[in-house]
Amino acid sequence: MGERKLNLLMDFYELTMANGYFKDDKHRQIAVFDVFFRSIPDQGGYAIFAGLEQVIDYLSNLSFSDDEIAFLKKKGIFTDGFLKYLKTFAFSCDVYAMTEGTPIFPMEPILIVKGPIIECQLVETMILLTINHQSLIATKAARIVHAAQGRAILEFGARRAHGYDASIFGARAAYIGGVIGSSNTYADYLYGIPALGTMAHSYVQSYETEYDAFKSYALAYPDNTVLLVDTYNTLKEGIPNAIRIQKEVLDPLGCTLRGIRLDSGDLTYLSKAARKMLDDAGLTKTKITVSNSLDEFLIKELLHQGAMIDSFGVGERLVTARSEAVFGGVFKLVAAEEKGAITPKIKISENVQKTTIPGFKQVYRMYDNNCMAIADVITLHDEVIDETKPYRLFDPDFPWKSKVIEDYQARPLLEPIFKAGRLVYQKPDLNTIRDYAKKQMAQLWDEVLRLERPHQYYVDLSKPLWDLKQTLINQYRK
Amino acid sequence: MGERKLNLLMDFYELTMANGYFKDDKHRQIAVFDVFFRSIPDQGGYAIFAGLEQVIDYLSNLSFSDDEIAFLKKKGIFTDGFLKYLKTFAFSCDVYAMTEGTPIFPMEPILIVKGPIIECQLVETMILLTINHQSLIATKAARIVHAAQGRAILEFGARRAHGYDASIFGARAAYIGGVIGSSNTYADYLYGIPALGTMAHSYVQSYETEYDAFKSYALAYPDNTVLLVDTYNTLKEGIPNAIRIQKEVLDPLGCTLRGIRLDSGDLTYLSKAARKMLDDAGLTKTKITVSNSLDEFLIKELLHQGAMIDSFGVGERLVTARSEAVFGGVFKLVAAEEKGAITPKIKISENVQKTTIPGFKQVYRMYDNNCMAIADVITLHDEVIDETKPYRLFDPDFPWKSKVIEDYQARPLLEPIFKAGRLVYQKPDLNTIRDYAKKQMAQLWDEVLRLERPHQYYVDLSKPLWDLKQTLINQYRK
Repeated sequence: MGERKLNLLMDFYELTMANGYFKDDKHRQIAVFDVFFRSIPDQGGYAIFAGLEQVIDYLSNLSFSDDEIAFLKKKGIFTDGFLKYLKTFAFSCDVYAMTEGTPIFPMEPILIVKGPIIECQLVETMILLTINHQSLIATKAARIVHAAQGRAILEFGARRAHGYDASIFGARAAYIGGVIGSSNTYADYLYGIPALGTMAHSYVQSYETEYDAFKSYALAYPDNTVLLVDTYNTLKEGIPNAIRIQKEVLDPLGCTLRGIRLDSGDLTYLSKAARKMLDDAGLTKTKITVSNSLDEFLIKELLHQGAMIDSFGVGERLVTARSEAVFGGVFKLVAAEEKGAITPKIKISENVQKTTIPGFKQVYRMYDNNCMAIADVITLHDEVIDETKPYRLFDPDFPWKSKVIEDYQARPLLEPIFKAGRLVYQKPDLNTIRDYAKKQMAQLWDEVLRLERPHQYYVDLSKPLWDLKQTLINQYRK
Repeated sequence: MGERKLNLLMDFYELTMANGYFKDDKHRQIAVFDVFFRSIPDQGGYAIFAGLEQVIDYLSNLSFSDDEIAFLKKKGIFTDGFLKYLKTFAFSCDVYAMTEGTPIFPMEPILIVKGPIIECQLVETMILLTINHQSLIATKAARIVHAAQGRAILEFGARRAHGYDASIFGARAAYIGGVIGSSNTYADYLYGIPALGTMAHSYVQSYETEYDAFKSYALAYPDNTVLLVDTYNTLKEGIPNAIRIQKEVLDPLGCTLRGIRLDSGDLTYLSKAARKMLDDAGLTKTKITVSNSLDEFLIKELLHQGAMIDSFGVGERLVTARSEAVFGGVFKLVAAEEKGAITPKIKISENVQKTTIPGFKQVYRMYDNNCMAIADVITLHDEVIDETKPYRLFDPDFPWKSKVIEDYQARPLLEPIFKAGRLVYQKPDLNTIRDYAKKQMAQLWDEVLRLERPHQYYVDLSKPLWDLKQTLINQYRK
């Protein structure tokens, strides 16, 4: 379980296709692939881009060992030339991507790989896997944090995560999405995500009485005593024992009970009753934390009912994104070299939504003079938007729906990450990413952030890009 | 991304509790913890136990490095004695578990840890994480395989998995559940799970014409040509081109087109049309594979409509278990040493289902004289069921509902894995586990295997265990 090399973590067809390109001596053909997604989980108004740091780590280290090549050779279907190519593999593509923590929207490229088609193909699986997972969890976390209206969210899902990475990188992505910490100690060790947690029912059960267990814990952590009060009977035993601990154990030490945790029962009713009991005992500063299969929907409902809760421990439904466990990022060819020129490609589909946006592109986010995001505009890669001039936004499906904006800022979202295989990007640290995400979300209208039937943020095409797409569609029809 | 040590992958509260036990000098107290789950995902009739091999690997290697201990020391809340204890940590518990691939049912212990309470606590998170993940995916895979009624299922979900482990161990668990292979090449490298796959749309798009792409692929893999026929127009271009490939490329080589793959459109309609076109062209042996957001529900529906499909590629909905992404295994204290004796413990809950089954236990599976499973009986650990005598099964909630069985076999399901920290179990290889799972599922009645409203398999308590539980409930009431 110690060492691992993820070089072969790829769909087998990446290898059969790569071998095919090599055999046809077209593996050096330059191609452009876009990563994008088609719909937002949970019919939400936005998603959060995450996972770039791990994509960079992967691309920086990809190579194939003798063992791995010997394994492939045994399959008996790969040419010697291809296997030799793998032996000396060196990533040489250009990569462009958005900053982690950026709110992202359907159909816009969030990462672009441009380079020899064989390399693009070989890195597809790991790029998608990494971005799909972390963007899924960062998005879910952002929704949950938003529902809690300023109250703290703690990520507690390790035991229900889909494997070790799902817990580790899930904690990372949840932190980007705004949780204040994680139960996963390793995520703190690796990334400095504050490790949080108190006690389980087993601690209470293993002592003769609940009071004994509470006393033991308060003496161990007098400055940070949070007591789980629902092992036997929350209102008749748990909270009275917690109050006794304040009087008999913490008062003499000059400390205040930091909090209690409720992990079962009706959390609205119990939190209100608990708040009153604590306040009546003078414990007005003692916080109430709750847990038990929470998500953004239940949190919203509890707060709507006036539950007296200061923070939420959210586990399985965050770390698995249970309400929609799939983030559907795809990796699609949008241009390929033909007779020396990069030629835009389109994939037409009967399903209009599945028709791709051709060409090598850039994405601009347009802000109004209050720094609020109005729309994203997908453009040709080298297109420049001149902020000194009015700009016409139009709906790509119904182009007669248009609007001219003035006094705006246009910020390009895709930045160079690798140039010819060389990392040219300074990876920001995790807290910088988290702060950036928070700031970016604050620049979205409340209507976009809403959980239920949010406003659909505009993702438009520039006129030159729209024209290109129409031209290719018309070419295809003939 | 290379090396990793998962020693600190634990909920932080395991460490604060462990430190508390240590401070109170009760860390050597012997405790018994059960892993069990309360409900089957998707209201199914059974789940499949998986992940034991990785639990064994973890427990065999758990230790704490100087770095890790220095990290904990900086938290400023752990005693020096506890940190010194971690430095010399050696796992010394007994572990009992079911064989991987065993069908499992709610409320029965599937793994038991018995030993010093501090050790039990420290290993909780990783045991649950590992078993919850792999049992979730093995169960989902078994349901999908069952729905396909003998047709092959291919696991294709790497790009939508929740991180790298979710793909790797997800492929392992899916293979235990009965898929024939995975797209994840690394899962083949590590575990010998057959790596499968053909081509993506990008391959077709990157050639001048679909025919050129097909020809390239057929020449590269003449013995195993599977063509993706839906890039442009399945019925008008894709399948006619595939038929041309047979005549113009494969016939001269003496080969037969292995298959075509449909990845969009209405799969019932297209598979029937494709079958007819292939048959009319004499390609009666060419198989039809389909993919595109499949799961057990859609597969059942397609087959019910008479779709002509030979195998299914199942991706995101298998690897994320999308319809129910949480497997709710828990780790509960059921006994603890008191005054030198292991004393059963119970946790009473207002919610009857959440009241634990106390004591150190064993589980027997009762088979009738046709080797079909009748019921599981949870017993005290040392209880022996004498197969030569009739046995009374009764409903633990309604004990007047009972039935006497004769001519049965009673097979204990929990086997020793570790004795005093020493591995005493021979890990079976993956194909053995997969065969075992298949055989065990064949010993369940069709009524239990059914997807919709399955028969609820009986999980009973022995009379001595039932008496113990009632005694503890009555003691608690006083």
